[in-house]
Amino acid sequence: MQRIEHRACFGGWQDVWEHRADTLGTAMRVGVYLPPQAAYGRCPVLYWLSGLTCTEQNFITKAGAQRYAAEHGVIVVAPDTSPRGAGVPDADGYDLGQGAGFYLNATQPPWSAHYRMHDYVVHELPALIEAHFPADDARAISGHSMGGHGALVLALRNPGRYRSVSAFAPIVAPTEVPWGRKAFAAYLGEDPAVWREWDACALVAQARERLPLRVDQGEADEFLATQLQPERLREACAAAGHPLTLRLHPGYDHSYYFIATFIGEHVAYHAAALRA
Amino acid sequence: MQRIEHRACFGGWQDVWEHRADTLGTAMRVGVYLPPQAAYGRCPVLYWLSGLTCTEQNFITKAGAQRYAAEHGVIVVAPDTSPRGAGVPDADGYDLGQGAGFYLNATQPPWSAHYRMHDYVVHELPALIEAHFPADDARAISGHSMGGHGALVLALRNPGRYRSVSAFAPIVAPTEVPWGRKAFAAYLGEDPAVWREWDACALVAQARERLPLRVDQGEADEFLATQLQPERLREACAAAGHPLTLRLHPGYDHSYYFIATFIGEHVAYHAAALRA
Repeated sequence: MQRIEHRACFGGWQDVWEHRADTLGTAMRVGVYLPPQAAYGRCPVLYWLSGLTCTEQNFITKAGAQRYAAEHGVIVVAPDTSPRGAGVPDADGYDLGQGAGFYLNATQPPWSAHYRMHDYVVHELPALIEAHFPADDARAISGHSMGGHGALVLALRNPGRYRSVSAFAPIVAPTEVPWGRKAFAAYLGEDPAVWREWDACALVAQARERLPLRVDQGEADEFLATQLQPERLREACAAAGHPLTLRLHPGYDHSYYFIATFIGEHVAYHAAALRA
Repeated sequence: MQRIEHRACFGGWQDVWEHRADTLGTAMRVGVYLPPQAAYGRCPVLYWLSGLTCTEQNFITKAGAQRYAAEHGVIVVAPDTSPRGAGVPDADGYDLGQGAGFYLNATQPPWSAHYRMHDYVVHELPALIEAHFPADDARAISGHSMGGHGALVLALRNPGRYRSVSAFAPIVAPTEVPWGRKAFAAYLGEDPAVWREWDACALVAQARERLPLRVDQGEADEFLATQLQPERLREACAAAGHPLTLRLHPGYDHSYYFIATFIGEHVAYHAAALRA
């Protein structure tokens, strides 16, 4: 791993690392915030998954999470949103290809050789983090929009892997909305049964573990009705008896100003679970 | 004034407005954060001046100041760093022309027709803010790098206009360093006596009002030795008997991670002065 940014921040260090990702067959960048406590011992890790068009930079420059991570002694790991590079397939538009990995393992050509973000985020990246940083194996996961979908799906697919999960404005039912349907058709092919393995609402119905889901959603979010539809998650959790805290916030939109406002509560929530 | 962004943030609103600036002869954008308290009455105002290359966006997206402004009930106004537009003179390079107004009134062609950021920030903008928003006339000023120079110079040149002033990594002696010498030669011509009217260290020597200066500086700042040289301000303040709090922070660089770490202390400092 090669460190390409190193910046003092709230008594710790906001770094960016670049490394070869075998799972993805390309180089990847990842933001790693080391709180002051990491200078003295191992800390738990919160993984943050960003949304469409984002790189590892958006969350670390705009969310203001470092203050809370420093307060609670949590390492925050923010990977890129897809494989990237000249040899990685891409598509026109912001919602497929590079910057739009959807945190799944693609099965269809030309995507299947590189687009394996599920395995990268769930397995390869934590192994690297736990080997190279003062990180213990207590993991939490959160994310925004496409990354909120990723956080919910990765937690639901991997029982016992995460102590807690939360999401900001997640795509809760990608099989039912345009962003998800376009991406899943390309990455996964046309079989609806396969799509359901990557849909939080469908996964809730068959979950073996009842890890509580915590979701915050702005009511002025420009994608609320078309792409997000949090009521689908409320219905799925109610039907399955799955614990859900869904908070709707009047006035808030889809931007990082929304994330910045509530990220402190999410970091505190994860910190409590990680240290329990 | 036309509102072009409107985003809920920490219980208030992070807006961006565009307006015709008569002082500058062009349209300008300005970030305005209205804390929750502004819905119920008038609030004091902190003006923030950004550094080279910045627009009104950098501070409002990266510094995380809204949390503290909401806590203390302070409006935060963040203008652009120069006049802009097709009719406004520009230069090659990031340190002269658009994005590099240096918060002065240019006297030399072709700059003098538009580059009057001192008058815009000190007079035209506060008049607009106090007419269009629930702002009272208690004003504080802060900024970063070129904007730190701006905050110090505007406060020192305009006794009684600001209740408090602070700066992050300011250019304290522009007449002595490359950034300032290049800009001053272009905007002000070759007379060193004129330059000194826009140099914080020179102004301290002749200040009529002893408004305390508060400065934070990172010791790992990549511009510390070449462009910033805070020891010059320490010496000028010591010689003049001008109150200065200069804090040096090991490890911190010139980035917004440094600003984000300490902006909460600055907002609290200004809030106390504004409400005194």
